Amino acid sequence: MDSPSNTFSDFDIQMMTRAMSLARQGEFSTKPNPAVGCVITKDNRIIAEGWHQRAGEPHAERVALAAAQESVEGATVYVTLEPCSHHGKTPPCADALVEAKVGRVVVAMEDPNPLVAGQGLARLGAAGIDVQSGLLEAEAEALNAGFAHAMRCNLPYVRLKMANSLDGHTAMANGESQWITGAAARHEVHRMRAKSGALVTGIGTVLADDPSMTVRLPEAELQTMNLSEAESHPIRVVLDAHLSMPVDAKMLSQPGRTILMTSRETAEDHPELVELLANAGAEIVAVEADGDKLDILSVLEYLYQEEQVFDVLVEAGAIVAGAFLQSGYVNELHVFMAPCLMGHEAKPMFFLPGLVEMSDKMPFQYQSVQTVGDDLHLVLKPVSGAATLATSF
Amino acid sequence: MDSPSNTFSDFDIQMMTRAMSLARQGEFSTKPNPAVGCVITKDNRIIAEGWHQRAGEPHAERVALAAAQESVEGATVYVTLEPCSHHGKTPPCADALVEAKVGRVVVAMEDPNPLVAGQGLARLGAAGIDVQSGLLEAEAEALNAGFAHAMRCNLPYVRLKMANSLDGHTAMANGESQWITGAAARHEVHRMRAKSGALVTGIGTVLADDPSMTVRLPEAELQTMNLSEAESHPIRVVLDAHLSMPVDAKMLSQPGRTILMTSRETAEDHPELVELLANAGAEIVAVEADGDKLDILSVLEYLYQEEQVFDVLVEAGAIVAGAFLQSGYVNELHVFMAPCLMGHEAKPMFFLPGLVEMSDKMPFQYQSVQTVGDDLHLVLKPVSGAATLATSF
Repeated sequence: MDSPSNTFSDFDIQMMTRAMSLARQGEFSTKPNPAVGCVITKDNRIIAEGWHQRAGEPHAERVALAAAQESVEGATVYVTLEPCSHHGKTPPCADALVEAKVGRVVVAMEDPNPLVAGQGLARLGAAGIDVQSGLLEAEAEALNAGFAHAMRCNLPYVRLKMANSLDGHTAMANGESQWITGAAARHEVHRMRAKSGALVTGIGTVLADDPSMTVRLPEAELQTMNLSEAESHPIRVVLDAHLSMPVDAKMLSQPGRTILMTSRETAEDHPELVELLANAGAEIVAVEADGDKLDILSVLEYLYQEEQVFDVLVEAGAIVAGAFLQSGYVNELHVFMAPCLMGHEAKPMFFLPGLVEMSDKMPFQYQSVQTVGDDLHLVLKPVSGAATLATSF
Repeated sequence: MDSPSNTFSDFDIQMMTRAMSLARQGEFSTKPNPAVGCVITKDNRIIAEGWHQRAGEPHAERVALAAAQESVEGATVYVTLEPCSHHGKTPPCADALVEAKVGRVVVAMEDPNPLVAGQGLARLGAAGIDVQSGLLEAEAEALNAGFAHAMRCNLPYVRLKMANSLDGHTAMANGESQWITGAAARHEVHRMRAKSGALVTGIGTVLADDPSMTVRLPEAELQTMNLSEAESHPIRVVLDAHLSMPVDAKMLSQPGRTILMTSRETAEDHPELVELLANAGAEIVAVEADGDKLDILSVLEYLYQEEQVFDVLVEAGAIVAGAFLQSGYVNELHVFMAPCLMGHEAKPMFFLPGLVEMSDKMPFQYQSVQTVGDDLHLVLKPVSGAATLATSF
């Protein structure tokens, strides 16, 4: 193959920007596949476009090739992810591009799976097609952060979401927590849910708040996201070491699935609870635990391996949220911060045992800061090398 | 006078923007006077400029008139604050403009003192000068927020500054608090101190941290702020109901003044403490108190009436900061938020007794959000009508 070059023209940048915008149309609907967009040009004009809509349906390159109203021989193809070279639910896109005799392929990023990265480009190069990689790579990575992380680490990408006051509280001492943030922030959270394969909370939150844990967005908005209402709900996951879930919990009667993660010990010792809750609509999964505390790595491995979940959203109280942070498996912290003060008696954001000295504090970096209604939406990433004090809760 | 019109040309806007930028050069050095800038134009070109440098020296209009190298007869004068009509340390600027026979005067804002507002413009109008008001009024208000508030309310403008973690903590449980925020945030705080007439803290902070409470900025930066090192320090004010101040507290040997505010009871019952601390360099002031808690209104009234302090910066621990908030006298809340977590055992931002239900939470509005180094600088204003639960601490 030709060695990839990083010299791109303004036209190249415009076309890849267009491909990225097409890819975003599938942001919510392609899971577990990545969202991908494709633009085909000839003589500096667009002759076809395509984007991947959902798993099992044609990839972006196939959609664009099929849409072309003229020959694509010698054309330039812009695609936001390296064309696949393996047989999945659909035949390899690299082969289709070779057969179509396109002249040049520009990709935003290589296949994030280190075991296969570059093979699609190599196949194109071997057929004499000019290939280039790395145009708008950071945008492409960000669009499919969960997919890319899962391919590289064999674990889902974990977003931890909090909604709290400026002084770091999530509920009053009496437990009252509705509503700290405004309607715009809550709406954004429902979009984050719809993007996720699983929504994780702890049994404490279920017992305190009896949440529905569904996506509640207007029908018209779901249509723009290419989702039916039924498809919109992520798998609900409750960390419930002792199977304390009430059989009449609200979420058990909601559309979508509910998985109760429990300890192997509880599952073995209490078959009657397992049966009761299964009859109530829950799926029971036993994972590793250390006493009361389920092993977070086991939880995430199960979701990745058995459920193909690449994007996990954690919405939980101080104990589960703190345990996720201390496990080291949180990739992004999303803080919706309301411009209000709740006082010293209100409940803390995170239970973080063992933080004693200033040098123990957990470091992050601000990635983005946006206003959403009257609130702020802060996105932070952990600074690598941050101390991890525990891996279970 | 002519009735002020709000129709301004692009040239007017450019000239007032220039006047505002001149005014900012005095932002740190004019207290207790407002920072004011002035531009004089003729035939759409600038013929003179001026800004007020410090109290006792000529006002911006006088500086600009003196700088003119040609006749100002018929000229247009842009000034960021209504020209004064009273004899202070210098004669009225309105008279000087009338004598100079300028043709038009445009001001950003009227004199904020409701008892004199408009009199300067009236004097100009009576002399046949065309006057207009309200160009870049919001910017002018913001530049002299303390002066404007003091003129209207007979109280200083209070900024409450906190430096805390993302989860709302200001120190570890062991008291360790250096450093949560980075060097850039701390530098900005020193600039805020230099802008303030008084820096207020509580005796608890003095006993815990023994702070210097000085402005520590590079000599070159002080020069750009038009300040000598000696002028840069605001009056230090310690709320010390029982006169527990150690005679060897670090701040007592720093340049600048230190006032200990105490209760009348303590001052009367313990003349030996008053003498001891006065000999150590402190000034002792007795104010109203309710038991242990000094009355915040009395503290602010003293600073306004006796010290001509228009800008107060509060840097204190959870108890004093919470008391200021609950008093209702905080005008701006400045939060320097570090991207780190300190955990549930660390110390809270605010002690706010009596906040029990969600409806008790104290509402604010975000005014600005900026990154400063690795930290965020959030500025919030209280939403009017917020509950005030106490007026003393």
